[in-house]
Amino acid sequence: MTFKRTKISVIGSGFTGATAAFLLAQKELGDVVLVDIPPMEDPAKGKALDMAEAGPVLGFDARVKGTSNYEDTKDSDLVIITAGIARKPGMSRDDLVQTNQKVMKAVTTDIVKYSPNTTIIVLTNPVDAMTYTVFQASGLPKERVIGQSGVLDSARFRTFVAEELDVSVKDVTGFVLGGHGDDMVPLVRYSYAGGIPLESLISKERLDEIVTRTRKGGAEIVNLLGNGSAYYAPAAALVEMAEAIIKDQRRILPSIAYLEGEYGMEGIYLGVPTVLGAAGIEKIIEIDLNQEEKALLNQSAESVKAVMKVLK
Amino acid sequence: MTFKRTKISVIGSGFTGATAAFLLAQKELGDVVLVDIPPMEDPAKGKALDMAEAGPVLGFDARVKGTSNYEDTKDSDLVIITAGIARKPGMSRDDLVQTNQKVMKAVTTDIVKYSPNTTIIVLTNPVDAMTYTVFQASGLPKERVIGQSGVLDSARFRTFVAEELDVSVKDVTGFVLGGHGDDMVPLVRYSYAGGIPLESLISKERLDEIVTRTRKGGAEIVNLLGNGSAYYAPAAALVEMAEAIIKDQRRILPSIAYLEGEYGMEGIYLGVPTVLGAAGIEKIIEIDLNQEEKALLNQSAESVKAVMKVLK
Amino acid sequence: MTFKRTKISVIGSGFTGATAAFLLAQKELGDVVLVDIPPMEDPAKGKALDMAEAGPVLGFDARVKGTSNYEDTKDSDLVIITAGIARKPGMSRDDLVQTNQKVMKAVTTDIVKYSPNTTIIVLTNPVDAMTYTVFQASGLPKERVIGQSGVLDSARFRTFVAEELDVSVKDVTGFVLGGHGDDMVPLVRYSYAGGIPLESLISKERLDEIVTRTRKGGAEIVNLLGNGSAYYAPAAALVEMAEAIIKDQRRILPSIAYLEGEYGMEGIYLGVPTVLGAAGIEKIIEIDLNQEEKALLNQSAESVKAVMKVLK
Amino acid sequence: MTFKRTKISVIGSGFTGATAAFLLAQKELGDVVLVDIPPMEDPAKGKALDMAEAGPVLGFDARVKGTSNYEDTKDSDLVIITAGIARKPGMSRDDLVQTNQKVMKAVTTDIVKYSPNTTIIVLTNPVDAMTYTVFQASGLPKERVIGQSGVLDSARFRTFVAEELDVSVKDVTGFVLGGHGDDMVPLVRYSYAGGIPLESLISKERLDEIVTRTRKGGAEIVNLLGNGSAYYAPAAALVEMAEAIIKDQRRILPSIAYLEGEYGMEGIYLGVPTVLGAAGIEKIIEIDLNQEEKALLNQSAESVKAVMKVLK
Repeated sequence: MTFKRTKISVIGSGFTGATAAFLLAQKELGDVVLVDIPPMEDPAKGKALDMAEAGPVLGFDARVKGTSNYEDTKDSDLVIITAGIARKPGMSRDDLVQTNQKVMKAVTTDIVKYSPNTTIIVLTNPVDAMTYTVFQASGLPKERVIGQSGVLDSARFRTFVAEELDVSVKDVTGFVLGGHGDDMVPLVRYSYAGGIPLESLISKERLDEIVTRTRKGGAEIVNLLGNGSAYYAPAAALVEMAEAIIKDQRRILPSIAYLEGEYGMEGIYLGVPTVLGAAGIEKIIEIDLNQEEKALLNQSAESVKAVMKVLK
Repeated sequence: MTFKRTKISVIGSGFTGATAAFLLAQKELGDVVLVDIPPMEDPAKGKALDMAEAGPVLGFDARVKGTSNYEDTKDSDLVIITAGIARKPGMSRDDLVQTNQKVMKAVTTDIVKYSPNTTIIVLTNPVDAMTYTVFQASGLPKERVIGQSGVLDSARFRTFVAEELDVSVKDVTGFVLGGHGDDMVPLVRYSYAGGIPLESLISKERLDEIVTRTRKGGAEIVNLLGNGSAYYAPAAALVEMAEAIIKDQRRILPSIAYLEGEYGMEGIYLGVPTVLGAAGIEKIIEIDLNQEEKALLNQSAESVKAVMKVLK
Repeated sequence: MTFKRTKISVIGSGFTGATAAFLLAQKELGDVVLVDIPPMEDPAKGKALDMAEAGPVLGFDARVKGTSNYEDTKDSDLVIITAGIARKPGMSRDDLVQTNQKVMKAVTTDIVKYSPNTTIIVLTNPVDAMTYTVFQASGLPKERVIGQSGVLDSARFRTFVAEELDVSVKDVTGFVLGGHGDDMVPLVRYSYAGGIPLESLISKERLDEIVTRTRKGGAEIVNLLGNGSAYYAPAAALVEMAEAIIKDQRRILPSIAYLEGEYGMEGIYLGVPTVLGAAGIEKIIEIDLNQEEKALLNQSAESVKAVMKVLK
Repeated sequence: MTFKRTKISVIGSGFTGATAAFLLAQKELGDVVLVDIPPMEDPAKGKALDMAEAGPVLGFDARVKGTSNYEDTKDSDLVIITAGIARKPGMSRDDLVQTNQKVMKAVTTDIVKYSPNTTIIVLTNPVDAMTYTVFQASGLPKERVIGQSGVLDSARFRTFVAEELDVSVKDVTGFVLGGHGDDMVPLVRYSYAGGIPLESLISKERLDEIVTRTRKGGAEIVNLLGNGSAYYAPAAALVEMAEAIIKDQRRILPSIAYLEGEYGMEGIYLGVPTVLGAAGIEKIIEIDLNQEEKALLNQSAESVKAVMKVLK
C-alpha cells in the first residue's frame, strides 16, 4: 500500500471558508478544494492561489485549488460547508432559513454525488437546522454529519475568562450545550481556570456578564465590523473539529449532533459534548444536568424545533 | 531582569494587515496592535477581537488589540506598515504615489512619536519609494527601515516551479533582485530545486513563462479576486521578515534596503539580498551579476528613481 | 533598541538535561548552554553538537553549546538545574540529600556569579529541599527560584486517564499538590476530561488505581529502564515551565514555590498551583481544600520538612 | 470510509530509535511501535511510556508502545530499522558486516511477516550494504526499501556552513552523493547560502575543512561522547524522510536507492538525489557530474561493493 493525501473540500469561499482552507493547508491536514459558484468562482481561485503562494514562506506542502466544479471535489475525505447567505436587514428569519435550506440541499447533492462516503461539518446558520438539512439530503449516517457551534462559543467564553483573570487561554476551559449564540447553554460549573472552578475565581456578577457577552459574541463582532461577521475564530473551530476527525484524535469537543434519545431529545440536531474521531461523532457524552440547565437545554431545543418547522 | 513580551504594531487593518497580525499572533511572536483610522477603527477592533477568540482553539497566547490611537503602539519593538490606498481606475500613478506618500509621512510621524527606537517594515506600494519616504520621515537608521517585495516575489516563483516539477515547495529556492512585480530581476541561475539549478530541470521556454507569471503574480490575483489584491502570501512574507528580526535569526532574505554604494547605486531603496537579524538589515550581500542582470537591475533602479521624482 | 536572543543554561547534561536542551532549541525558545563537569564535559559538547546538527533538518535556529565553563553561561535569562546524583543501591536517603545539597550549592554559586539576575528552575531530587537549597544559595527573590514536580505528576495522571477513557490527552486535565511522587496530593475532584469531573466518568476503584500508578510513575519507568530514570516527560515539564516564563504566558501550572503563609505553611518549598509569567512565580493560587486534602498536604509538608532537617 | 491512523514501527530502541520514535510522536505523524529484543524489551517499554507521558505537556496525540513482539507491528505503514550493533574495539569490519547482516535478515523477516506491503527506511551501518540486505530479505519493490545517509551528512554540512557564515541554517543547503561518512561525495558547487554558491562566500581552504569535518562528522560526535554515537541528527534525518513519505510531500532528498543503470551503476544501493513521496522513492534524479565528482562517486561505489562482498 502507499500513502494517500487527505482531501478536504470547503464549500463557500467567503471569509470563513477561505480562512478555514488556509488553516487546513497551513497545518498540512490535506489538500484543499475551495468551492464557490459564479461569480465567486474566480475569487475562490484567486484566494486559493494566494494561499498556495504563502506555502513556500510558511513552510507547508498542500495543494489548494479554487473551483466551481464539484467534480474537483471527487473523493473528498472531509467536506466543510460554509456556504449560504447571512441575514440581511429586512429579511425575515423564515426567508433566511428557507434560502439557506435550498443552498444546503443543492451543495449536499453535489457533494455526495462525488464523495458518497465522506464526512461533513456544517457551519451555515441557523446551524442546527442546516446540519439537519444536510443530514437528510446526504443520506450519510448521522455520525458523519456534524454541526459546529460549541467550539466557537466556548472559545469566546475562554477568551473573556482569560482576559478577566489575566492568565493564559491555554489553561481556561469552557463548556457549552444547546444551540448557537443566544440559545447557548453555558455550563459555568463545568468551566475552569487551571482546573479551578470559575465560580471560586470570579464573582457571580462578572461571570454572568461574561456569559452574556459570550452569547452575544457573534453580534459583538458583527457590530464592530459593520459589514460582515466573524471568521477567524469560526474557521479555527471548524479546523479543530476537522483535525480531530482526520487524525482520529478522539477529542472531547462540543458538536451539533443528531440526538436519538440522548438528553431526552429525539430527532433533532443539538449541541452536546461528543468524542470526535475517525468515524466522526464516535460518542455522545451525557452529563448530569441540574433543573436550571435542563430547562435551558429544553428551551434551546424548542428554538431549534421552531426553526425546523420552517424547513420545507 | 524579567522577560518582556515583544510588541508589534501593524498599521493598516486591511486584508494584508489583518492577516499579518493573525500570523504574528499565531506564531506567538509577540502582542499585536492593529491600527487603523476611522471609519476603519471599529473593523480593526472587530478583527483583533475575532483573532484573539481564535487563540484558545489554535493554542496561542497573544494579546491582539485594534485601535486608532497611536498611544496604544507605545514602545513597539517592531512596526509593519500596510496602510495606504491601492491604485483605482482612472487614478494616475503620480496621484497614487503622492497620496501614499502623505499616508506614509503621517503614520511614520505617529509611529516614531511613541516608538522612537523601533524597526519598521514597509509593504505599501510603490514599495521602494514608500520605504524611502518612511526612512526619511522616521529619522531611524537605514538598517531599521526595510521594505518587503523579494520574499513575496520569490515565494510566487517557488510555487510555480514546485508545481511545474511536482515537488515540494520546501525544496525550491528562488532569487530575485530589484523592484517589485514588473521591475523584478529574477536570478534564475541562482534558483534551484533540491540544490539542482533550474535550467537543468526546466526548459528555457517554460522558465521564461514562469518568470513572466511571477512578474505579473500580483496582477494575476487582482484579476481573479476582481475586487482587491493578494494578502495571504504578502502577509506571510512580512511575518517571515519580522520573525527573522525578532528572533535574531540572521536569515538571508531579499529586502528593500537603502543602498549607499552597493551594486553601484547611491541613495535609493532597492531589493537586494540581505541578512536580517536583531539589528534589522545586518548586511547587504553583493553578488556578481552578469551583463544582462546588471542591465535589468539598472532598469529597475531607474523605475524606482522615476517614482522618487514624484515624491514631494 | 535591538532584539536580544534569550539565553538559557541547562546544568547537567544527563538524559533529562540533554532532552530539555533539545526541546528548548527545537521550540526556538533561545540559545542553549549545556553545562557539565569533567569527565562529562566532552559528552555535553557532543550532545550539544549533535542537537545543533539536527537544526537544519527540523528547521530550528538555536545555538547549542556544551561546556564545563560557567563563564559561558554569563547573562543567562533562565537556568534549569538537572545536575545531581540519583539514589544508588545501599545509599541512605540522608547521603543522597547531603550529596545533592553540595552539588546545588556549588552550581548555584557558579550560576549567580555570572547571571546575578536570572530565574532558576530546579529538577534535582529531592526536589522540594533542593529548590530550597538553591533559593538560599542564590540570594534570588523567591519568585525566581522554582521547582518542578507537579507538571510531570499531572502529565502522568493525564496520560493514564486518557488511556482509560480512550480520549485525547489534550482534553484531560489533572491537578496535584504537595511533594513529588509518593508525597503527591492528587486533587481528583479538580481533574476533568472535556471539563467533565472524572468521578462521573471513571469508577472510584479505577481512579484510585490511576492515582496510585501516578504516585509511583517515576518508579514504574525506573523499573522498566533497569538503569536510569525517566527523562522525556520530565524534560517536557521543565520546558513548559520555561516557556511560560520566557514568553510571559501567565500559565496556571503547579510549581514548587516558597510558601510564606499560603496554605498555612511557612518557610518551606512545596507544590502548589501558581501563575508562571515573566517574573517567575507571579502568584500562588490558594484553593479550598477539604479535610482529607488538608491532611494529605500537611503530611506532604512533613515529609519535606524531614528532608530539610538533613540539610546542613 | 473513515480515517485511519498511520502506524509506524521503529526497530531498535537505542538512542537513535528512541529519539526517532519521540519525534514521530511529537509531530503526530502516527502511532509508534518501538521494538526491541530481550533484555532491551523492558527499556523499550519504559522509553515508550516516558514518551507517551510527555504527550499531555507537549500537546501531541500519539500512542507509543514498546514491545518485543512483532505481532504488535502488524499492518505498519512504515518501518524504520535502527537495530544492529556498533563496531567495537577489536572487531573487524567483516565481523560487523556479517553480524548486522544477520540482524537485518532476522528483523526484516519479522517485519514483512506482519506488514507485507510496508515501506522500510534503514539506518543501520554499513548502511548501503544493510539496505541492500533488507531489500533482498523483504521481497519489497526497490522503491520501498530506502537507506538514510545523505540527509544527515548534508545536515552536518549545513550546520558547519551556517556557523562559518553566521547565518540561519534555514538558508543553507547542502548536496551530497555516494556513501556515508568517509565515502561521502560532497557536491559543494550544488550547495548554497541564500541561493548564493558557497564558493563565492567561503574560501576554498575553509570549504575543504568543512567538507573534511562533515565526512568525519560521525566520528567527531563519537569521540566527544566517549561511549556511543550521534542520535539527535540521525533521528531527525529519519523522521524527515518518513514525513516526506507519509505526507506524500515529494521532497527532493538524498536517499540510498537501488540503482539499475542510474549514474552508470547496476545492482547496488548508493546515495543519490531522489523524490520521496507516498510510493517511497518516486524518482531518482540524475545530475551532471564533472570528472572529479564521477571519480569520487565511483570510488564510493567501490567501497560499497567491497562491503557487499562480505555479505553472505
